Amino acid sequence: MGKRILETCFSPALYEPDAHNNSIVVIIDILRASSAICTAFANGAATIMPVADLSEAKVYKSRGYLVAAERDGYVLDFADFGNSPFNFTREKVEGKSIVYSTTNGTGIINLSSSAYMTVVGSFLNIGALTKWLISQERNVLLFCAGWKNRFNIEDTVCAGAIAKRLMVSNFYSTICDSTYASIDLWSLASPNLHDYIEKAAQRTRLKDKKLDDCIDFCLTEDFTEKIPVIKNGILVDNIL
Amino acid sequence: MGKRILETCFSPALYEPDAHNNSIVVIIDILRASSAICTAFANGAATIMPVADLSEAKVYKSRGYLVAAERDGYVLDFADFGNSPFNFTREKVEGKSIVYSTTNGTGIINLSSSAYMTVVGSFLNIGALTKWLISQERNVLLFCAGWKNRFNIEDTVCAGAIAKRLMVSNFYSTICDSTYASIDLWSLASPNLHDYIEKAAQRTRLKDKKLDDCIDFCLTEDFTEKIPVIKNGILVDNIL
Repeated sequence: MGKRILETCFSPALYEPDAHNNSIVVIIDILRASSAICTAFANGAATIMPVADLSEAKVYKSRGYLVAAERDGYVLDFADFGNSPFNFTREKVEGKSIVYSTTNGTGIINLSSSAYMTVVGSFLNIGALTKWLISQERNVLLFCAGWKNRFNIEDTVCAGAIAKRLMVSNFYSTICDSTYASIDLWSLASPNLHDYIEKAAQRTRLKDKKLDDCIDFCLTEDFTEKIPVIKNGILVDNIL
Repeated sequence: MGKRILETCFSPALYEPDAHNNSIVVIIDILRASSAICTAFANGAATIMPVADLSEAKVYKSRGYLVAAERDGYVLDFADFGNSPFNFTREKVEGKSIVYSTTNGTGIINLSSSAYMTVVGSFLNIGALTKWLISQERNVLLFCAGWKNRFNIEDTVCAGAIAKRLMVSNFYSTICDSTYASIDLWSLASPNLHDYIEKAAQRTRLKDKKLDDCIDFCLTEDFTEKIPVIKNGILVDNIL
């Protein structure tokens, strides 16, 4: 093939499934789902099963699964823990199969099920992820989770960081305005990422709920080499 | 009221009608619908009637209206002219009622019909528009037309230019990530707007069709003081 095509999607409401049947889709939801998933596998989780429905999550809980479940940032009472990466410690998750219900991420994982492959991206695995993407002869879609279908800054900036590395490799071309915008926003954000993310609405929401303790961690590059991938509807620990 | 709320929407697919019932919605589709509409009124057009349906446009044509109609940038054979601002000369449009069918703009005008008021924005009327908005005690939504529901750079940058002026006035507050992103992209674009827009996909599409002759004009600030507004489904020449 010629150069691979790189595209970026800013919201589930903008996702076009038919356009990406042959693409690798990278789901980006850094505050906090995609960061939490990367952390869980870094700490030895065996599998993560995304479920959209809370009653389904409860059934799995009653069968002895570990359940991560929250809505709007709050841990649900029947769950073992919520969406913070800090919950997915080695002590809790090593070797375990986890059922994961989340406000935003689950729907997106289902939405992208027709893609060639769907993997999970964050700053935590950005080095391994981009190196692997470059090794593949595939078009790439960076799929920002957004928040309640809205554009968000933090996922866009992470998409820009990934896109920048891919474009620099010279294996990709793009005519996608969202990709250009994300790279430009990353160029503005990267000198002081923490301060830039300060203005993101999700950061404010997390702060209001005192759930913002993990943000610096979520902005850390290369915490893990794991590239979570969806196989048969379940997240497993690596594409390799 | 306290500070007015400023928000930005990047695509018709992201528009939330119920959130903006009390807002002034500014439709931005600078390449080329909103620039063409501003130009038409600057040159004395009486009214512009947006129609979504081509057969409806044909009926109006048979009744003697001037008809502007194109799809994907091409003028339709029954129409008097297409979407370029250069078509709307004083000789052609002064005192006339124009029927306007367009790929993107018409649907958006209909979508925003539940807003408090819907006006048309572009670089061509940015000074008058922002001055007038600041004089109003109203929340504002900057509604980028995008392209086939996709995010686009040129409308986002124009939204950022408007948003910057409104925020500087100190009458507005925002927690909208799209607004922050548009202001940041405007800050990158404004030192050399023409070069920045070069990378926009729509600019490339227009160039491929040799329709890009109007782009520098569309990036010109303050060509007119007109602020086209929708009244009873029809665009009229000023909010005043």
